[in-house]
Amino acid sequence: MGYTAAVLGASGYAGGELVRLLDDHPGIELVYLGAHSQAGRRLAEVHPHLTGGERVLGSNDSVPDVDVVFLALPHGASWQPGIALADRGAVVVDLGSDFRLDTPARYEEAYGVVHPVPESLGEWTYGLPELVDCTGARRIASPGCYPTSALLALAPLAKAGVIEPSGIVVDSMSGVSGAGRSLKEDLLYGAVDEGVRAYAVTTHRHRPEMEALLDAMTGADSTVLFTPHLVPMQRGILSTCHARLAGDHTAADLRSILEDAYAASPFVDVIDGPPQTRWVVGSNRALVNVHVDPRTGTALVLSAIDNLLKGAAGQAVQAANIALGLPEAAGLTAAGWMP
Amino acid sequence: MGYTAAVLGASGYAGGELVRLLDDHPGIELVYLGAHSQAGRRLAEVHPHLTGGERVLGSNDSVPDVDVVFLALPHGASWQPGIALADRGAVVVDLGSDFRLDTPARYEEAYGVVHPVPESLGEWTYGLPELVDCTGARRIASPGCYPTSALLALAPLAKAGVIEPSGIVVDSMSGVSGAGRSLKEDLLYGAVDEGVRAYAVTTHRHRPEMEALLDAMTGADSTVLFTPHLVPMQRGILSTCHARLAGDHTAADLRSILEDAYAASPFVDVIDGPPQTRWVVGSNRALVNVHVDPRTGTALVLSAIDNLLKGAAGQAVQAANIALGLPEAAGLTAAGWMP
Amino acid sequence: MGYTAAVLGASGYAGGELVRLLDDHPGIELVYLGAHSQAGRRLAEVHPHLTGGERVLGSNDSVPDVDVVFLALPHGASWQPGIALADRGAVVVDLGSDFRLDTPARYEEAYGVVHPVPESLGEWTYGLPELVDCTGARRIASPGCYPTSALLALAPLAKAGVIEPSGIVVDSMSGVSGAGRSLKEDLLYGAVDEGVRAYAVTTHRHRPEMEALLDAMTGADSTVLFTPHLVPMQRGILSTCHARLAGDHTAADLRSILEDAYAASPFVDVIDGPPQTRWVVGSNRALVNVHVDPRTGTALVLSAIDNLLKGAAGQAVQAANIALGLPEAAGLTAAGWMP
Amino acid sequence: MGYTAAVLGASGYAGGELVRLLDDHPGIELVYLGAHSQAGRRLAEVHPHLTGGERVLGSNDSVPDVDVVFLALPHGASWQPGIALADRGAVVVDLGSDFRLDTPARYEEAYGVVHPVPESLGEWTYGLPELVDCTGARRIASPGCYPTSALLALAPLAKAGVIEPSGIVVDSMSGVSGAGRSLKEDLLYGAVDEGVRAYAVTTHRHRPEMEALLDAMTGADSTVLFTPHLVPMQRGILSTCHARLAGDHTAADLRSILEDAYAASPFVDVIDGPPQTRWVVGSNRALVNVHVDPRTGTALVLSAIDNLLKGAAGQAVQAANIALGLPEAAGLTAAGWMP
Repeated sequence: MGYTAAVLGASGYAGGELVRLLDDHPGIELVYLGAHSQAGRRLAEVHPHLTGGERVLGSNDSVPDVDVVFLALPHGASWQPGIALADRGAVVVDLGSDFRLDTPARYEEAYGVVHPVPESLGEWTYGLPELVDCTGARRIASPGCYPTSALLALAPLAKAGVIEPSGIVVDSMSGVSGAGRSLKEDLLYGAVDEGVRAYAVTTHRHRPEMEALLDAMTGADSTVLFTPHLVPMQRGILSTCHARLAGDHTAADLRSILEDAYAASPFVDVIDGPPQTRWVVGSNRALVNVHVDPRTGTALVLSAIDNLLKGAAGQAVQAANIALGLPEAAGLTAAGWMP
Repeated sequence: MGYTAAVLGASGYAGGELVRLLDDHPGIELVYLGAHSQAGRRLAEVHPHLTGGERVLGSNDSVPDVDVVFLALPHGASWQPGIALADRGAVVVDLGSDFRLDTPARYEEAYGVVHPVPESLGEWTYGLPELVDCTGARRIASPGCYPTSALLALAPLAKAGVIEPSGIVVDSMSGVSGAGRSLKEDLLYGAVDEGVRAYAVTTHRHRPEMEALLDAMTGADSTVLFTPHLVPMQRGILSTCHARLAGDHTAADLRSILEDAYAASPFVDVIDGPPQTRWVVGSNRALVNVHVDPRTGTALVLSAIDNLLKGAAGQAVQAANIALGLPEAAGLTAAGWMP
Repeated sequence: MGYTAAVLGASGYAGGELVRLLDDHPGIELVYLGAHSQAGRRLAEVHPHLTGGERVLGSNDSVPDVDVVFLALPHGASWQPGIALADRGAVVVDLGSDFRLDTPARYEEAYGVVHPVPESLGEWTYGLPELVDCTGARRIASPGCYPTSALLALAPLAKAGVIEPSGIVVDSMSGVSGAGRSLKEDLLYGAVDEGVRAYAVTTHRHRPEMEALLDAMTGADSTVLFTPHLVPMQRGILSTCHARLAGDHTAADLRSILEDAYAASPFVDVIDGPPQTRWVVGSNRALVNVHVDPRTGTALVLSAIDNLLKGAAGQAVQAANIALGLPEAAGLTAAGWMP
Repeated sequence: MGYTAAVLGASGYAGGELVRLLDDHPGIELVYLGAHSQAGRRLAEVHPHLTGGERVLGSNDSVPDVDVVFLALPHGASWQPGIALADRGAVVVDLGSDFRLDTPARYEEAYGVVHPVPESLGEWTYGLPELVDCTGARRIASPGCYPTSALLALAPLAKAGVIEPSGIVVDSMSGVSGAGRSLKEDLLYGAVDEGVRAYAVTTHRHRPEMEALLDAMTGADSTVLFTPHLVPMQRGILSTCHARLAGDHTAADLRSILEDAYAASPFVDVIDGPPQTRWVVGSNRALVNVHVDPRTGTALVLSAIDNLLKGAAGQAVQAANIALGLPEAAGLTAAGWMP
């Protein structure tokens, strides 16, 4: 067991998945579990499905020296420990949103406030390993679940110049675990089961994150109209992405670009037909499928991920593996759970 | 009880809802239930939730003389009985797709075959009462579930000229009852629960139906890119519709146009925030909500209906009510079931 | 519209169903909606699926003079308004548990506290119309959902002496709406979906309620071992009830007793095979099915109801109908919703 | 990789789980996938969630020489290949029901036909490792999912003589994957979602299997009244088991017996409160919780398992591990998936 690790925010859904993955990781030893309001409770009380339930959650504020720290904290709660722990020498993988955006301006647009340490934004690597090199990274901002799904579908096409970066439409459908574990009336079983809804229409904070990476990869100003939807299932995100074709390209052209982009990736598969989220639940895999609608001159790209794995905990481990020089797929699986 | 009615295809989901509605209708008496392979069985065997279960399903082929016939038959199965029964003098409401399109060319594009009686297409009224006058209609082609949801969101805006009729993007999410009751591996609980998927990407037959009415209302050539999705719930359709703004319009402008369009309608409500399908399940109501995204110049219109009621049986009864001179809302409810 | 009515606790699930039923009731006019913490809000905010959403919830404490009041209040909250309103002359139907038990001792055993007005217990009629005559009742204690389902299965058999009243085992499976609308971590979608659990093992407060009516109907001391289970669905209770046969009886014998008991009831059907909760969801119907296991000398009786209708709001309206001299089924339906 | 393995019936749910587990097993190499009607298809077509999807399913009838064969075949289909493959020298683990019962008489009672090779019944080890020693076994009959859950709850108590072996009541609630992947109307999403039902009342074939092991462990004649229920979820079985106490025993007494019985087991945990199936889905773990109801003199034991893992594929791998001399938990996990 080469490296030691801590997970802060271990009591949430993403935190629980980090614990599950790291408990079974061949190259990383999980030695500390931190929590905020749940500190002091046994793991079995907050995650009865995990093993080692007798472990007690410590405080998020007293982290021992470890090689890598995973932060699964609410928005706004990770910048302080993130910077402090990185300055102490740990590799930090922040699953939150404090360091994902590239510029203070973009941060301010997304969150409506000035970033507390604006000069730090440029120091963090966006941890989407298929699109951004994470080798040797010490400060990793792990992507949001929706941006992961949309960018895996769109970024190689935008970079290749076959789609227009402006006027992109992304409609995503997410399982409920994406909303976290907090106690809200809208997340009661009685409010979720047997219904579908859009939310945060035109205002979701993941939209600037999508545009940031598209801008970085294309050098152009992208615009995305992003609408997230909540569907009655635990896990999974399906993103149906529409972009205007830049020139005359076939579906085969686009597929070829995507296949080249992911040829070396153990976790992204370009497939023949529409992906189902069920096929990736429990796995770190992303499935991408591309169509062209000649009537409207549109590229339609569908992608499916598990929001808690490729969209959160799995991708964080994947980026950490690369940063630490471990095999990219160590401790991760591409096989899912079904039924 | 003024009018007598028959339901053909009573063993399916839409047929069952027609029976439930008509059994409780103050102005129509349901006197005949027809079926195909289920003929000869008691109603209790095919719809154990309905009352009057001792009624025996007759054949679809031996319909007594009634005032109004509802056809809930598979695609291609209603044109023959539809024409024959209408010629015998009944008001015919066809819930199938045989008479929904306006021209033989559009039918051929959608279905890949020549319409068996192309000259009949012009004789049928498209039974979407909020958009097409059904007064006195004798041959009613009841709209598809997806077109109902998309057109209620888009048609008044297209007609008013505030959105471009071309390049419209409609992403719809439907409950599983929309796929009918047939025995397909993809519809097993084990294949549906806990997953979301797109299907019939760029090829769904409801797309030409949307364009037909948009063309009729605008006089222009509309193009829609329509992607249906299956979500793990029984009922409900949410359509997230995107259209380029034609000129400089605010959300308030668009809302005002929609409110005017539905001012007299008992079943369409324009609401403040994103609608949830749960709010209309069990009801004949449609909820519409409009946004403008100035960054991309897009009108975003969300609509929610119950696919088996406003999207099928309820709308058929609504159109029949109008055609027969009964109150539009007779036998229908705008209150839904929740939880 | 003969009678006027008020619903207190209109913001909960049972309260919402009362509003829905009474809004469509031919003989009762709902004139007042009361609430506690939700007072002052529009109905559309708390029940977006209902019509007349512009109605504002008043206080539970300022009820106008009406003919009948339905109390859908938490445990312990109905005895005061219940007695006060009845003393003011209204027919009171209490859907809560304050007046359901027959004796102060039984109340104390169930709730661990002394009843605040013990002498009042005998004044309330247990509102299970198939088993207790509600004609002319002015104070009606509407049964709990689990007791309704178990007693409809067992009481006629116990009364006929063909099953032993002691050692009865009732395993019930309920949809989540039975747990109400309150904000508890255990009721989050993420905690309920895809799982089943028992709860309140050996301690559920509905057990004494079952025994109270069995004792009253048999004159013997009954003992029930009741275990409720929560299953991932919105509505419905299935009770699987086991009782030792008292003597040598066949399933046909038992069925005959049940059929006789419910011959005049519009809402209880004795059926051939195991009932499914789906067949009664949305309806006021109960389905009962009886088996005999000769190997263990056990009568096995299955019953299915909608917990919010026959198990709460529907049964309350049914009892009120009888008490007021209206037709028993007025404003109620025996047809359900499916799929 | 010490041992080679084949899975027959790889296209079903249990077969798919066997493939997933063995693909990741440190001591067994899966070298052959057999199927019946799906032979010739790629694995990706029948199990799109698994890796190595390019593997082609061979025939169930042409199995290469391997060290261990797992049979995941329908009832009646495993006795022939089971005997033939065992005679060829492979360790055979049969997940079907052909060899589970101890006597020809019991088989005939359960299945209504004479066993084709009655003398073979005694040669198979019942593969429930916590209750039956599987060391060195060459022919293993892997238990049914319901018997696994009920026996883990009851067998140690029956063996210790603290519960009566007669008149046991087992009410089990299962996820739908237990019914397999076959195309039946009752298993459509539209027929399962939002409902609960009992089935095979008094006649389920798993009841004799429960009695067989109870008889073997107690030397007495046990009688079980078993009622299975289908609940709307993919996986998991909760069994609520009632048995008359034999003498005066407390819950602590019973718990102590269960804890002793499972002290060395990596996969059975005796816990404080009612188990939830969600806590074991995805894991090979069983959770057991015991109560005593002094009013009726009943021991109430609850158990939760994942029907496809501890109830099928996981347990089969566990038994094979022991039979082959590998660590009992090799390739298995006690951590589950949640949410």
